[in-house]
Amino acid sequence: MVWTGGGHFETQSFAFPKLAEGESLIRLTTATVCGSDRHTVRGRRPGACPSVLGHEGVGVVEDSRADLTPGQRVVFSVTSVCGQCRNCRRGLSAKCTSVVKVGHEATDSGWTLSGTYASHIHLPAGVAVVPVPESVPDAVAATAGCAVATVMAMVEAAGGLRGRRVFVNGLGMLGLTAVAAARSLGAAEVIAFDPTPQRQDVALYAGASTIMEEEVPPDVDVALELSGTTSGVQTCLAGLGVGGTAVLAGSVSPGPSVEISPEQLVRGWRTITGVHNFEPHHPQQAVDFLAADGGGMPWEHILGGPIGLSDLAAEFAEPSPGLRTVVDIDR
Amino acid sequence: MVWTGGGHFETQSFAFPKLAEGESLIRLTTATVCGSDRHTVRGRRPGACPSVLGHEGVGVVEDSRADLTPGQRVVFSVTSVCGQCRNCRRGLSAKCTSVVKVGHEATDSGWTLSGTYASHIHLPAGVAVVPVPESVPDAVAATAGCAVATVMAMVEAAGGLRGRRVFVNGLGMLGLTAVAAARSLGAAEVIAFDPTPQRQDVALYAGASTIMEEEVPPDVDVALELSGTTSGVQTCLAGLGVGGTAVLAGSVSPGPSVEISPEQLVRGWRTITGVHNFEPHHPQQAVDFLAADGGGMPWEHILGGPIGLSDLAAEFAEPSPGLRTVVDIDR
Repeated sequence: MVWTGGGHFETQSFAFPKLAEGESLIRLTTATVCGSDRHTVRGRRPGACPSVLGHEGVGVVEDSRADLTPGQRVVFSVTSVCGQCRNCRRGLSAKCTSVVKVGHEATDSGWTLSGTYASHIHLPAGVAVVPVPESVPDAVAATAGCAVATVMAMVEAAGGLRGRRVFVNGLGMLGLTAVAAARSLGAAEVIAFDPTPQRQDVALYAGASTIMEEEVPPDVDVALELSGTTSGVQTCLAGLGVGGTAVLAGSVSPGPSVEISPEQLVRGWRTITGVHNFEPHHPQQAVDFLAADGGGMPWEHILGGPIGLSDLAAEFAEPSPGLRTVVDIDR
Repeated sequence: MVWTGGGHFETQSFAFPKLAEGESLIRLTTATVCGSDRHTVRGRRPGACPSVLGHEGVGVVEDSRADLTPGQRVVFSVTSVCGQCRNCRRGLSAKCTSVVKVGHEATDSGWTLSGTYASHIHLPAGVAVVPVPESVPDAVAATAGCAVATVMAMVEAAGGLRGRRVFVNGLGMLGLTAVAAARSLGAAEVIAFDPTPQRQDVALYAGASTIMEEEVPPDVDVALELSGTTSGVQTCLAGLGVGGTAVLAGSVSPGPSVEISPEQLVRGWRTITGVHNFEPHHPQQAVDFLAADGGGMPWEHILGGPIGLSDLAAEFAEPSPGLRTVVDIDR
């Protein structure tokens, strides 16, 4: 299903690629609709066009010249990285100087079958691929490759969550995952905030100890910012206790600057750090997290749909209820 | 030598303390004058008064109910920590909830001999004590307990310096130590800045690759901020490359806020972190660093004096040339 600009999608057929060394062809079974695709389609984020969108998906290996066996069920990373450049060598492959991305490349770019809103996806050698245990349902597994992997990168940037008082700001798909991950990884307390009452409820189902009612959370050890709003960043910074770390991931678009007090950072040993995408080991962590009882997440309140590929235009015009719309590829 | 307020110092005599379990009495041989004492005496920083100031020093164990042998030559940490509170248990002993500090306690506080501007210092059980190899001269060793240990904490907060492009802003005692440490720890490049031409020269002797002439250093991996100025913090943040970390340590007094761009932090995986004082393992790292050829630092351009204890009032009124005035206790 090729996105042709604006709210328009069009079924197109392409020949299967001839696989090069390290490449694989995956027959997709399920995709999920990440919020960034909605931003792209609405024109709030630049995107290659025409292109096959979709970067969360799960499928079965159809053919492979990598270490994959036909028939294996797999998920995969968003980024395809070179592994050779300075950023890759220092563990910053998300900023690989020749990065290309699943669901982000034009159909005439040389990587035609790049997205998950399609019957098949062609995975270059630089994409991390992770087998999925049978116990993890398709729709749950699909979220591993972007949403859940990003949360795993945030947890790592925070220096772990065990025994810590964690604040999660913004309770979309990533925020709810962050709440569940904090609970699962042994946080002492999980305080959550989102202005939407319905999301607050889901956060409680996901394991939040409390929904924040004050303006500033009290002395938290870790603040995970996923709203991308200026006030969200300010709240996270204001709530940091001594030795606390704010991990920002929501602010992916240009926005107003935020004031910090150097003295408060210095005297309080406070840290502010940014995370964008993730590294090749995070999708595996995401799958491990989801394999333990779906990460303890209330999937029945999270997933929307399922829809079919032919429903995508309607879905982008008017989103299904739920935080993650499931696309059943065979529907 | 008791500081009695303003620029006044007065010789006073006190009985030796009766040592409790874990405590030691050190006969001091040399102290060095940290800039924070100058701020205290000028009234720009609150300080207990009357008190024995001075928190950089070296001496010989005279008596000990800890694991120290009389005659051992030692340096010691600034902080005396409980080791029991939540901050101590999570490696943030600098923020121990019952911290007291060498050279910061009133003579009537119960810890009379707390400072290094004295013939003897009484060390509570909570102060980290480190033996000093014979190869390290007294005046060099004295700096381990505050200046050099703080730089070691900054290096740790930066995640190490090997192979990285390092920027050091502010070339006082700590900044020059940071330059030498970056060189000694294998930084790929050490860019330094201070508006004072004389300090720029000393930074080159300490191993700086270049003195910054542009307004912003180019894409650095680590920026170490030691000037405490607003513009210094801004320069460090503006110069951070992808994956870069700014370690702020100079901003210990209230000052203007600084604007940050959440999007630049997120998309660039950038980090801002604050360091204030250090942990008990850092004085040992400082001594190890200094034991290797004085850390490669141009001590002849750094040390001022020596003066005697009776010269302290004059020293605080008009500082000796050099970055660290040496106080020869027996002079």
